[in-house]
Amino acid sequence: MGYNLRLLVSCPDRKGLIAALSSFIAMHDGNILSADQYVSDGQTFFMRLEIKGEGFGLKRDEFDAAFAPLARRHAMDWRTSYTDAPKRMAILVSRYDHCLIDLLWRWDAGELEADIPLVVSNHPDLAPRVEAYGIPFHHLPVAKATKAEQEARVLDLLSEHGVDVVVLARYMQILGPGLVAAYPDRIVNIHHSFLPAFVGADPYRRAHERGVKTIGATAHYVTEEMDAGPIIHQDVAHVTHRATVEDLVRLGREVERRVLARAVRWHLEDRILVDGARTVVFE
Amino acid sequence: MGYNLRLLVSCPDRKGLIAALSSFIAMHDGNILSADQYVSDGQTFFMRLEIKGEGFGLKRDEFDAAFAPLARRHAMDWRTSYTDAPKRMAILVSRYDHCLIDLLWRWDAGELEADIPLVVSNHPDLAPRVEAYGIPFHHLPVAKATKAEQEARVLDLLSEHGVDVVVLARYMQILGPGLVAAYPDRIVNIHHSFLPAFVGADPYRRAHERGVKTIGATAHYVTEEMDAGPIIHQDVAHVTHRATVEDLVRLGREVERRVLARAVRWHLEDRILVDGARTVVFE
Amino acid sequence: MGYNLRLLVSCPDRKGLIAALSSFIAMHDGNILSADQYVSDGQTFFMRLEIKGEGFGLKRDEFDAAFAPLARRHAMDWRTSYTDAPKRMAILVSRYDHCLIDLLWRWDAGELEADIPLVVSNHPDLAPRVEAYGIPFHHLPVAKATKAEQEARVLDLLSEHGVDVVVLARYMQILGPGLVAAYPDRIVNIHHSFLPAFVGADPYRRAHERGVKTIGATAHYVTEEMDAGPIIHQDVAHVTHRATVEDLVRLGREVERRVLARAVRWHLEDRILVDGARTVVFE
Amino acid sequence: MGYNLRLLVSCPDRKGLIAALSSFIAMHDGNILSADQYVSDGQTFFMRLEIKGEGFGLKRDEFDAAFAPLARRHAMDWRTSYTDAPKRMAILVSRYDHCLIDLLWRWDAGELEADIPLVVSNHPDLAPRVEAYGIPFHHLPVAKATKAEQEARVLDLLSEHGVDVVVLARYMQILGPGLVAAYPDRIVNIHHSFLPAFVGADPYRRAHERGVKTIGATAHYVTEEMDAGPIIHQDVAHVTHRATVEDLVRLGREVERRVLARAVRWHLEDRILVDGARTVVFE
Repeated sequence: MGYNLRLLVSCPDRKGLIAALSSFIAMHDGNILSADQYVSDGQTFFMRLEIKGEGFGLKRDEFDAAFAPLARRHAMDWRTSYTDAPKRMAILVSRYDHCLIDLLWRWDAGELEADIPLVVSNHPDLAPRVEAYGIPFHHLPVAKATKAEQEARVLDLLSEHGVDVVVLARYMQILGPGLVAAYPDRIVNIHHSFLPAFVGADPYRRAHERGVKTIGATAHYVTEEMDAGPIIHQDVAHVTHRATVEDLVRLGREVERRVLARAVRWHLEDRILVDGARTVVFE
Repeated sequence: MGYNLRLLVSCPDRKGLIAALSSFIAMHDGNILSADQYVSDGQTFFMRLEIKGEGFGLKRDEFDAAFAPLARRHAMDWRTSYTDAPKRMAILVSRYDHCLIDLLWRWDAGELEADIPLVVSNHPDLAPRVEAYGIPFHHLPVAKATKAEQEARVLDLLSEHGVDVVVLARYMQILGPGLVAAYPDRIVNIHHSFLPAFVGADPYRRAHERGVKTIGATAHYVTEEMDAGPIIHQDVAHVTHRATVEDLVRLGREVERRVLARAVRWHLEDRILVDGARTVVFE
Repeated sequence: MGYNLRLLVSCPDRKGLIAALSSFIAMHDGNILSADQYVSDGQTFFMRLEIKGEGFGLKRDEFDAAFAPLARRHAMDWRTSYTDAPKRMAILVSRYDHCLIDLLWRWDAGELEADIPLVVSNHPDLAPRVEAYGIPFHHLPVAKATKAEQEARVLDLLSEHGVDVVVLARYMQILGPGLVAAYPDRIVNIHHSFLPAFVGADPYRRAHERGVKTIGATAHYVTEEMDAGPIIHQDVAHVTHRATVEDLVRLGREVERRVLARAVRWHLEDRILVDGARTVVFE
Repeated sequence: MGYNLRLLVSCPDRKGLIAALSSFIAMHDGNILSADQYVSDGQTFFMRLEIKGEGFGLKRDEFDAAFAPLARRHAMDWRTSYTDAPKRMAILVSRYDHCLIDLLWRWDAGELEADIPLVVSNHPDLAPRVEAYGIPFHHLPVAKATKAEQEARVLDLLSEHGVDVVVLARYMQILGPGLVAAYPDRIVNIHHSFLPAFVGADPYRRAHERGVKTIGATAHYVTEEMDAGPIIHQDVAHVTHRATVEDLVRLGREVERRVLARAVRWHLEDRILVDGARTVVFE
């Protein structure tokens, strides 16, 4: 079966970078299927190339060595991925199931390029939902006294299963620094609000009290500072004075699952590059 | 020419209020063209009735006296307006012209039920734009030392011209308490951000730094606390990493003028009732 | 447990209808929780009243007899429903599961006021999905020669299970006139296009060929003429030149399920009245 | 003052095109500010490059000769533009002014990279609006008998003023084949409907009768077949049963001017390439 190689690059901007990259591919007889490029503030160059595997002169065990000199010359940060080696995605969830079920359905429908080796939860409730899809469910309860220990076990599980990306599908625990540090720019969270408004807990109640006419959701990478990580995607829904807190929660569920699913899909397809506190998204 | 009467009522909720109001109208042979009703938190009753003037048994100099006993019995706050007596609207503006021009164009196109006896600005720049529509333009410059005095002159002008509603179409001055108190729930402001995010100055620059993927605008009534008044309308535009601060400003102009125009139209058609920190909008 | 009565009325417009209806409720000591009213083209009056069951003087076996004289006097079409007697909803589906699963999830989450006594399909594929929710799944295959017979069996099933409303969740068969006639204004279909564009089959391929920049979905009541029934709800998603037919299908799934779910919820909450070829939706 | 060169290319797809183009630029010491690329159906390659004029080794009178051999080798269709030589844009309009005024305001605000040497109308009404911006207004009335002659005069005017792009800002005349042929893919029209629904006249009335819940607008290039040219942009607004035909017209004006303005901006910034019946838009 065919596959594509994806090459993601960022480096200090200078003349000739596109020529250098595309000529390298051409020299090895590669067919570029798509190319996206962006220069941030005139300083940092970002590029994403998708190259057809068939006919490309560099096998996957040869690419890195061949590309390294060019990368070194331009001080490039770079990574590759192959479309026939989907990322290994873990989902962390608590009790709310709407984001989880939406991700599982999309995965089952073939919308998400991923393997899902496990779902982890601090509550047992959603085990049947997960197991119906043939995915192992791990219940790791957490209490104040056991939080550090539970996180260590989560980290062990992720590591055992070779996880590449962690999705917080309404996981109602603040992650400790160890977990965050282990997956830099690889933990996707859905915040049930339009950041930076309503940082923190209970945003729908606070939105209702403030009388907002629009509610939103924000998908972002997790960093140490709560709800301050690079934003990947945001969307909103309009509401009227008739909306109760319960209506906001219901509408919010719809926005949350849509926003999270899109962010996860972009991550899995290597469409996101982090640019300081911001993200570059090559849709 | 025909006209309609609009009756807006709020009072403590109890049984029979709709019957009491609609029977009063029916008793005087009134034809109700539209009726909207809402009960907030099970406690406060809001109603808006639009009644055909033709055939209605109460002349406009008779209505108040006839309605007062019913209103008293139910402790109603109430007001009326007549569609052939459009509100007198003043626009305050500084240098940005997009909201001003949009309002003037809509007014000229017949979208806004208002007379516009004057536009006031702390800068002279927009005089030709305003005078092209045959509307008097008043330049009242403001400096730190003269702020109180300038506001007094603004207040005098509004009063002289019998102004009912004040629109801040990107008026870059914080209003003093005197002006705010003189027009409770009758000063409409456009905030160039999605409140409550980015309260205060320079929201587009701060939105860009935060890397948001959506920018918004908020129309609200002005109260003493800055950007904290009851929200009337909000909308957003999606942005990508490619958007510079200038792009955010450009897209923001589009959202701002659309959001402000809708809020102003609703106010002029008496579709808004204030419910504590929130608004009830009978679209 | 408490319940509410919903009363829906349409009749030729005349003065005093709101007074007549609300006074009838008040006379029987009813508490009106919400009231919505609309006059179509100055001719037809529509009203929806939601009345608190607790304290209302008319028991549910008394209401009809008590209301009939008033209804007769004004030539009213009317119906009632009680919030503690949810409608009985059948879902018809073929092989695409996105709308089905979304409805089942929302039903399970308590978003939909309905019992679902059965799901019927012309294919066996989705049985496990349905049975996981404890809902009986009926496989009634259809072929050209057996179409009339299959529809008769569907009709029997619906009748046996006392079905009030039928949802076509991407049921890829054109309904025969018998079924349509049996459930007037009670069969909700999702058309995977922005009607009236792309009536008929294969709309995403045709939309792609036409190079549209927006795709949509339409929920409507089913009438004899294909895709011509009263529209309940529509929404769209933006697309770019990069979208393949497959992308349109994927984005379409998202819009379809959202639009259908909203239409179904409105129907179940008795928020829709049919006005000739159009619908009145009291959101 | 600085300027950029924009290079737009389309040709049969093959390996090495990006390398060939970017190396050509690099060889002449060009700094690529942005690069966008797309392959349509695996067959046609499209690319847009924006190159900094400062420091680029090819002067503008040298570029064409230098680039021609490469273009010939790959059978490229190509064109260039320079950001300090804005396109010359003519606006054709009838009586509706909302699109015209919006374009003029945006032009005045610096949003549109264009000179506007003239506005042409078949009615005299909008002369003052246009002349207020210092732009010559030409009134060329049209009647059935004089249609061909009027078009010839329009064509002469466009030619005299060296017009590059023609915007139909609600010009209520069907263009003759001569005018269409003279400006292939350079006449932008706004259709006040969501194509391909409601092709032709009076779409708002027909949308109202059909009871749609969303109205739209479509900007497209004009071709010989009415309303069938390549679509550039589309957007919609939601409507309820309360919307009269007049409300649809009012909301439509808002969508129309927004959609047209965006299409015009993209055209002026050379972001659009025509791909058969479709458009590639490098936003």
